[in-house]
Amino acid sequence: MSILEIYNKDIFYNYQEGKNLLDILQDSGEIIESPCGGKGYCGKCKVQIFKGNLDKPTEEELKHLSKKEIGKGIRLSCFVYPKGDICVKLLYEEEKNYKALSDGYIPEIELNPIIHKEVITLEKPTLENNISYEEVLKKSIGRKLYYDNTEFLKALANVYREEKATLVYYEDKLIGIEAGDTKEKLYGAAVDIGTTTVVVSLIDLNIGKEIATETSINPQKEYGLDVLSRIDFVKRKRNGLYLLQKVIVDCINSLLENLCNKNDIDIQNIYEVSVGANATMMHLLLGIGTNTIGKSPYATVFSKEKNLWAKSIGLEISQFGRLYCLSGVSSFIGADIVAGAIVANLKHTKDNVFFIDIGTNGEMILSKEGKLASCSCAAGPALEGANISCGMRAAEGAIEGIQFNEEGVALQVIGDAEPVGICGSGILEAIAELNKKELIKKSGRLKRKEDLEREGRHVLAEHIMEEDKKRKIIICKKGDEIISITQEDIRQVQLAKGAISSGFYSLIDFMGMDIDDIDSIVIAGQFGRHLKTSSLTGVGIIPESLNDRINYIGNSSKTGAVMCLLSKDVRKEMEDLAKDIEYFELSTKEGYEKLFTKCLTFG
Amino acid sequence: MSILEIYNKDIFYNYQEGKNLLDILQDSGEIIESPCGGKGYCGKCKVQIFKGNLDKPTEEELKHLSKKEIGKGIRLSCFVYPKGDICVKLLYEEEKNYKALSDGYIPEIELNPIIHKEVITLEKPTLENNISYEEVLKKSIGRKLYYDNTEFLKALANVYREEKATLVYYEDKLIGIEAGDTKEKLYGAAVDIGTTTVVVSLIDLNIGKEIATETSINPQKEYGLDVLSRIDFVKRKRNGLYLLQKVIVDCINSLLENLCNKNDIDIQNIYEVSVGANATMMHLLLGIGTNTIGKSPYATVFSKEKNLWAKSIGLEISQFGRLYCLSGVSSFIGADIVAGAIVANLKHTKDNVFFIDIGTNGEMILSKEGKLASCSCAAGPALEGANISCGMRAAEGAIEGIQFNEEGVALQVIGDAEPVGICGSGILEAIAELNKKELIKKSGRLKRKEDLEREGRHVLAEHIMEEDKKRKIIICKKGDEIISITQEDIRQVQLAKGAISSGFYSLIDFMGMDIDDIDSIVIAGQFGRHLKTSSLTGVGIIPESLNDRINYIGNSSKTGAVMCLLSKDVRKEMEDLAKDIEYFELSTKEGYEKLFTKCLTFG
Repeated sequence: MSILEIYNKDIFYNYQEGKNLLDILQDSGEIIESPCGGKGYCGKCKVQIFKGNLDKPTEEELKHLSKKEIGKGIRLSCFVYPKGDICVKLLYEEEKNYKALSDGYIPEIELNPIIHKEVITLEKPTLENNISYEEVLKKSIGRKLYYDNTEFLKALANVYREEKATLVYYEDKLIGIEAGDTKEKLYGAAVDIGTTTVVVSLIDLNIGKEIATETSINPQKEYGLDVLSRIDFVKRKRNGLYLLQKVIVDCINSLLENLCNKNDIDIQNIYEVSVGANATMMHLLLGIGTNTIGKSPYATVFSKEKNLWAKSIGLEISQFGRLYCLSGVSSFIGADIVAGAIVANLKHTKDNVFFIDIGTNGEMILSKEGKLASCSCAAGPALEGANISCGMRAAEGAIEGIQFNEEGVALQVIGDAEPVGICGSGILEAIAELNKKELIKKSGRLKRKEDLEREGRHVLAEHIMEEDKKRKIIICKKGDEIISITQEDIRQVQLAKGAISSGFYSLIDFMGMDIDDIDSIVIAGQFGRHLKTSSLTGVGIIPESLNDRINYIGNSSKTGAVMCLLSKDVRKEMEDLAKDIEYFELSTKEGYEKLFTKCLTFG
Repeated sequence: MSILEIYNKDIFYNYQEGKNLLDILQDSGEIIESPCGGKGYCGKCKVQIFKGNLDKPTEEELKHLSKKEIGKGIRLSCFVYPKGDICVKLLYEEEKNYKALSDGYIPEIELNPIIHKEVITLEKPTLENNISYEEVLKKSIGRKLYYDNTEFLKALANVYREEKATLVYYEDKLIGIEAGDTKEKLYGAAVDIGTTTVVVSLIDLNIGKEIATETSINPQKEYGLDVLSRIDFVKRKRNGLYLLQKVIVDCINSLLENLCNKNDIDIQNIYEVSVGANATMMHLLLGIGTNTIGKSPYATVFSKEKNLWAKSIGLEISQFGRLYCLSGVSSFIGADIVAGAIVANLKHTKDNVFFIDIGTNGEMILSKEGKLASCSCAAGPALEGANISCGMRAAEGAIEGIQFNEEGVALQVIGDAEPVGICGSGILEAIAELNKKELIKKSGRLKRKEDLEREGRHVLAEHIMEEDKKRKIIICKKGDEIISITQEDIRQVQLAKGAISSGFYSLIDFMGMDIDDIDSIVIAGQFGRHLKTSSLTGVGIIPESLNDRINYIGNSSKTGAVMCLLSKDVRKEMEDLAKDIEYFELSTKEGYEKLFTKCLTFG
């Protein structure tokens, strides 16, 4: 065994030689960003090595590291196989105070939560009537209890110090009992688990209001940036499934704790957590294997709603607390999308509504006056600012607006701070601008410096750089640090745009409709406030002609989860709706490849 | 903080001064026998102290310690309040290979277990029919699944590597799925948790046979010898309830593991554990507070049967495993007694049958041609050889037979070993002999040495000793070590006999019957093989005239648990029977005190 020292944490671990440094660090419990899941192509698992017997950097590493970094001893941990004692500095800093889009439009619904309370005066056994407390209670309220764990009995053993008790019901099933009158304290939590972000809202079930919301980066991100890398992580890594479940449950518990502390609420008074998420996130939350989702025929183990004890996955709410996983359709159309269909009222509309959830996957539902068809496409993480050379989340320092003028480049930065990188809406606006200002060709190719000079656009020409035959356009420069958009970045967005817009056209075609038949386009997901509709139409994701029919409904996955907490009727409706959504597999469409290629080009 | 060293284990603990040594040791996780629960009167929590700043032994300690022991530094840990560093040697040795009475008469029943299996050929989702594995399965078998935890889905995610799968049903509910054909592997475990002993039987549910049985001392015994001291322990000790639950669950798991290892069975193929136990043991098993049982009106939190996931209390059987707690009547008539009523066929008999379970409590049911009345009395642990000065369990070295002749004392010792103490049946036979040979008076008073000499019984007179005005009769002597029966021991047995026989007469009276109406007496509990019926009648627990109507059915609590595993009909019958047993509270009987006093005297 050799010793691994974490320089900036003053921690020492024993490790067994033979594994790569990323695995060693992750096995030791350290969090290292590794979006590609350790496969060596994301270049994010950088660490600085002060001491240790190492091989020279591999060619693959050299692609991702600057000379300055190499000089400092910075390496990609997935390529390093340390021998003997080693001292490592972790470079990853947590994205603190990250705010995901947590709010959104919520339809009016009647308050009718499945969880409710009733205050009773306790009867007690006597010497003459020497039956159990359980039987006395059953007789006096005339209802069955709802077991399968011992929490109710544990509580029952302790409520008799007070005269009154409060019963907790799940629908008509008695699930809990509390000493005294606790009727005023009745809370639920709505959770959206996105591949990238987690949003938790605390809901007062007595008045049907959202009290507060907390958001966080999905901590599973450290083990794989997208759904497929996490499925791969589960497959490759012993205990990988357990690990991914643990970090997401811990994350939700910690957000709940924050919410309760800040709002002076006892976490024991949260009785239900409802969760909207895509199929993979839902499987990981429940600790269910994801292997079948990762390969053809891409079937889930489960898709429909799940009613469980919150305790069974380690959620630290009330001891009687329930967990409700919203109903999904398939591995492609998860509960998050069904939630969106409810929030957007797709079933009961008299219009033709096109719902698109833009994330790492683009999922869409087209409602033709209430008849629903869906499809799904792999957009990649580019539109979320990931897999983009200077990409970052929509946090302070992120460039969210870019305009190219003949005088140069104008930027809008979140928090008016020094620019650090470009967020999803920024990259989309930038590409739309590059297109509009004819800095790229229809094929997406960046124009050459010489081309721009020939056109007399000398200032902008100065922004074009070419290195190792790779072209990029510089957005801003500060000393050595350059923020730029590379040809590869444009390619990433182009692929996302091609995937989404070919889905868009295909689904309209599938329903026998024309673009002009669409009355409204509803955009869900992380986009919203940050994104101009002109960026969506500007890159060609949505046709120009529909620009004024675009609406944002925000995080409809979370909104759906809130609605399920507030109304058991909505819950029922959502479960039924999940059965009504037809799925259209894009790859089976005749001429899809051709359409996709056409959609890659800029208009 | 000071340091506590355990000399014979080479372990060191930090401890906070101010608590007594027994508490300190138990808090550190050490097991110290303390049958009185640390109240200072059992004298069992002896430790040897090598180093430490201590007060002198208290007067109470001096009563329990010989001069030799005091010389060696032996102390009662509940009286010692150590200051500073201390070094302690633990004197308690585990009673290894202890065998409790595990077998007994089992009625013929039809094999019809609630747990059963079915082998199917798995259908699979396709790209065209992209529904979840759960839905495919549901459709192909046309049954509902039975959730509330995620174990089924976890298993479902892993069975698709084989073509066949085996479904596990609990009645008509699908609870589990296993890869391949596992139909041959279908086991259950029947458990009897006695206050003193634990018995676990492994049952093959396919053929309805007991494979093997393991027994153990109930490890809760270290925290209190009888039910009341354990209830008190739970009340006094933070985490006491958790601790008592943990040790009994660990004990059952370890017995199950032994059984499986010895019989080459995978513990994952045990699908149900059924448990017979008194009310307090059942509460502790499920981790339910026992405070209400300990004080008037002595009500349980629950008495009726419980169907739970085995996992919910930490039983390490199949991930889908169930736990069935047999139905009881009240805090006095637990599931162990209802089991006895089924085994003794009390409901369907055409005779008048008197069922007595002799343990720390004496519970009885009288069946008047199928009409059932019950009562319960506190016999104390004397008849189990506890609370007796030289008492011990029925293990090697225990005196199980004693005869007094004019030439001296004849002994039968278990395992033909050097005598170490007297077990329950031995003490009962000894008292019966003392009575028969007129060595005691009707009041139970041991005759004086002078009285016996006057009667010309010189050899026996030599056996009578008087010390500090306390009389005893010496059974055997080896150097300094004396095994004797003290006046106090006789008193303990007398109280037990008084309690049981007054209950016996009261119940007959309550049912409007005479002793001669009794066709049969059924004795359940630890007694059986070891105990002569003449001892029961000799001390007057059972009237002499019924001597030839006494039958032993052995451990009927375990037998009842076995029957519940083998037949869901028996299970149903037992649940119904629990409602049919009338309970007669002895203390409400007119003239009970007088009857009890009368029953104390020897005939």
